[in-house]
Amino acid sequence: MRKYAIGLDYGTNSCRSLFVNLETGVEVASHVYNYPSGQMGVIVDPRDPNVARQSPADYRAGLIEIVVQGVAKAKAADPAFSPELVVGIGVDTTGSTPMPVDRAGVPLALRPEFNGNPGAQAWLWKDHTSHAEAAEITALAGKMRPQYLAKCGGTYSSEWFWSKVLHCKRVAPEVFEAAFSFVELCDWIPALLTGVEDPLALKRGVCAAGHKALYAQSWGGLPDKEFLGALDPALAALRDRLYSTACTADVPAGELCATWAKTLGLREGVAVAVGAFDAHMGAVGAGCCAGKLAKILGTSTCDLMVAKSGQPLADIPGVCGIVDGSVIAGYYGIEAGQSAVGDIFLWFVNNLVPESFGASPGAKFGALDDAAAKLKPGESGLLALDWNNGNRCVLTDVRLSGLVLGQTLHTSAPELYRALVEATAFGARMIIDRVRAYGVPVEEVITCGGLAVKSPFLMQVYADILGMPMAVAASDQTCALGAALFGAVAAGAFADIEQAQKKICRIRERVYQPIPENVAVYGELFALYRQLHDGFGTAAWNGNMGNVMKALIAIRERQR
Amino acid sequence: MRKYAIGLDYGTNSCRSLFVNLETGVEVASHVYNYPSGQMGVIVDPRDPNVARQSPADYRAGLIEIVVQGVAKAKAADPAFSPELVVGIGVDTTGSTPMPVDRAGVPLALRPEFNGNPGAQAWLWKDHTSHAEAAEITALAGKMRPQYLAKCGGTYSSEWFWSKVLHCKRVAPEVFEAAFSFVELCDWIPALLTGVEDPLALKRGVCAAGHKALYAQSWGGLPDKEFLGALDPALAALRDRLYSTACTADVPAGELCATWAKTLGLREGVAVAVGAFDAHMGAVGAGCCAGKLAKILGTSTCDLMVAKSGQPLADIPGVCGIVDGSVIAGYYGIEAGQSAVGDIFLWFVNNLVPESFGASPGAKFGALDDAAAKLKPGESGLLALDWNNGNRCVLTDVRLSGLVLGQTLHTSAPELYRALVEATAFGARMIIDRVRAYGVPVEEVITCGGLAVKSPFLMQVYADILGMPMAVAASDQTCALGAALFGAVAAGAFADIEQAQKKICRIRERVYQPIPENVAVYGELFALYRQLHDGFGTAAWNGNMGNVMKALIAIRERQR
Repeated sequence: MRKYAIGLDYGTNSCRSLFVNLETGVEVASHVYNYPSGQMGVIVDPRDPNVARQSPADYRAGLIEIVVQGVAKAKAADPAFSPELVVGIGVDTTGSTPMPVDRAGVPLALRPEFNGNPGAQAWLWKDHTSHAEAAEITALAGKMRPQYLAKCGGTYSSEWFWSKVLHCKRVAPEVFEAAFSFVELCDWIPALLTGVEDPLALKRGVCAAGHKALYAQSWGGLPDKEFLGALDPALAALRDRLYSTACTADVPAGELCATWAKTLGLREGVAVAVGAFDAHMGAVGAGCCAGKLAKILGTSTCDLMVAKSGQPLADIPGVCGIVDGSVIAGYYGIEAGQSAVGDIFLWFVNNLVPESFGASPGAKFGALDDAAAKLKPGESGLLALDWNNGNRCVLTDVRLSGLVLGQTLHTSAPELYRALVEATAFGARMIIDRVRAYGVPVEEVITCGGLAVKSPFLMQVYADILGMPMAVAASDQTCALGAALFGAVAAGAFADIEQAQKKICRIRERVYQPIPENVAVYGELFALYRQLHDGFGTAAWNGNMGNVMKALIAIRERQR
Repeated sequence: MRKYAIGLDYGTNSCRSLFVNLETGVEVASHVYNYPSGQMGVIVDPRDPNVARQSPADYRAGLIEIVVQGVAKAKAADPAFSPELVVGIGVDTTGSTPMPVDRAGVPLALRPEFNGNPGAQAWLWKDHTSHAEAAEITALAGKMRPQYLAKCGGTYSSEWFWSKVLHCKRVAPEVFEAAFSFVELCDWIPALLTGVEDPLALKRGVCAAGHKALYAQSWGGLPDKEFLGALDPALAALRDRLYSTACTADVPAGELCATWAKTLGLREGVAVAVGAFDAHMGAVGAGCCAGKLAKILGTSTCDLMVAKSGQPLADIPGVCGIVDGSVIAGYYGIEAGQSAVGDIFLWFVNNLVPESFGASPGAKFGALDDAAAKLKPGESGLLALDWNNGNRCVLTDVRLSGLVLGQTLHTSAPELYRALVEATAFGARMIIDRVRAYGVPVEEVITCGGLAVKSPFLMQVYADILGMPMAVAASDQTCALGAALFGAVAAGAFADIEQAQKKICRIRERVYQPIPENVAVYGELFALYRQLHDGFGTAAWNGNMGNVMKALIAIRERQR
């Protein structure tokens, strides 16, 4: 009998469903719902660019539409499909995107008395209003609990759970008072589907807990009350209303409840997996496994790796997060990334490329790709640092900036474009070299995201600089595909995620293989990149340049 | 009785006359003659981009046209003008631009048997065919006569006299054999006008001799025979057919001979001054004197300073040339410069500025100037090195390249443009700091050249970075004006050049004064520029970057 699973993927501006045939791996249908609230689904504040909230009502309305419409499309596309054949549902979302909920698990935003109160909405991952609280948490942890910082790259972020909750307490005390608990979006959707109303009963995912809420089994779950109480006694009290264990996403959160089964037109009792973040499930959908790094190549990048757990894994300095089970159960999930990749190319094309290369940004990209592909490594004499948006890994320093050197009076735009692409690949290599040095094997890269498909030139440069094959995931929707796989495993359709990946995940035919002579030249260029990286990125000593970028930023801030 | 002087200025593509009223300083007439030969006057070789020759016939034809037409224009413009009132003629030319001449002083190029022989033409300043000979001379001097290099910045150039003569001997031996002597263009025009045919009798200028032919009184004139013989015995033999003394340009080369007086329509006996190079006479025309640096701001820059002679002046490391009397008699002439200034801006505009800033390069420059002028120092967070064409002063190293750092995802083209302008001003400050450290006073800068007039924004940045007033010479033709002043002094119309300058040289009304708060910020930025300058421009030690640009150039050359 055929089986299908549904992946539900909640992004920043929309959510989507993906219906997957578990025998063939065919993605039979998909439906997208654009959030109606705010600006493209994001509730902003014209007076404060840091504000980014979302409406739980959008999530709920989207849930109905993407499944109901998806079922209709699946029926149309695949005569063998029937809603009865759906065995599992998996959910991935952005994060950390916590919501205050009441004792019955209802988001406060859905209660009339909090209508229009931004503190009661979901606090979207890219909300940066709590930067002061993040600094406070980092400072306190540095003093009281340095082990907390060691697993998250040394700095607690304003994008993360505790910063947001503490900021909510300060700026919207009426919301905090009314909140029985706070629930991540990735945990709330499965709770909704399974009809688990009690916030104390709903299953929490280890991905959000570990990467964003400082949860780890090794120190007994969430941060201890002494630490939380030092931030605010109310946080220590909240700890009892959160959770003490968190689950991997192959575990069922429960079964589809009668109410939602009817609403969605699915069978009651379908397995619903515990939720996780989009990047993590996307890595699974791309085929990430031990030795295969999944790289999501977009405006920034997210690199996900796994390493067999069981034996302790050392903290890896400068790597954003290491959480046992956050990608695949039985493996440490290791998350790294670069703060700007596609964004650097877009900046260059939008600001520094004449129209002679094309009338639109897309045409310019095409012309630059073609011209840059004709150059040999090192031929331009250029070398760049990929720090236009700071450095997330391995320096974890936002007060850094871009650098290009080697310009002559003949340097062309395609040469500079190639140098910027190379810089991002060198940055990628820094991350891989670092995790390898700490015993994490990386033998191949599987990419997904627009750039991987659009630019064969870029993929070849990456293969040559990383010295590894670069594959491209076959699916255009690896996040939703990964979510579907977790739904399938939770339903027992596969023994585990690895088996599901073997059956379902595909790469595209063209795998970019490193070209030995290019690898050799890039080896020389990488040594020079490292010299710039360490010289400008680390503390000043003797003749090095560690002060230069910071001094310029300090002057810039004073002068603006 | 009114008096007039004529300045004759021989440039790369044309020559021009300037008729100056010595009472009022008014420039009453000017006439330009475009050389008819080759490409815009330059005889090139499609197979060798290093070749750049000129035709002495062009110089001669131009001489007649610019004076005869100038006289006619002067009569038309100034009713009081009469050719009888011209008292002196001065000559400036490009250089080193030597010509092989026969025993009668006739350029071999004008003899039928050498018709079409490029070796017999004038070897224009920018002819680079003799780069191997230049390296040979530098190497030999380093071993045998290090004092020769100390006065010319450490490297003997392929643009200079001995490199060209030695290369002529090797590639055109028939020309070298037939040449009784070699004469610089700046010496040949005065010889022609004064009817001095014997190469041994014609007066040679100390400007060309000192800056290009290693002439110095301190070591007995031209390089000694042992040194020249080590290069080629024929050069040692040639030494006797050159000159043993060289004169400053306020000295008369002689009087206008009857033949040329008739040809030009001037009075026989008019004083003709010894010739010198265009930049040096241009500095005089701009008003260069002790404490006032003359800066010719063009595609590259030439900085000329003078320092009272009489007491010995130490060699200034990294400064191109120091020659007693090369600018003004009684002063050391100190020549420095930057290998690319306007060229860097032109490169940026031609390669990296979208058409949204303007449809033409000129429109783009205007828009960039306007936008960049609105920025405050340091506001962009950018810092650049001005080495896109290497560094002429004070590092004297062509194997360096450009650098820009501080880019974010918001960095704009006007911000980068401003950073490049600032970089050239920081480079200018490096030169001034260096000569000051060796006791040469610099209190004000007088600029000439297109950029000084076109870009008030650039002038203000220079004033703020140099911390000095920046004046702009009133004359658009400072070279020809300077030449006219030397003609006037040779004629006895003024006691000396300083008196002539006081009477004639003017600056424009707008003098750019440093703005104290900008000076302060630029002081901080200059410290960072120096850190990059020394880190990337000097030999590698500890953490510095002295190897990076050279390694990239080596890879580039290998890969091309």
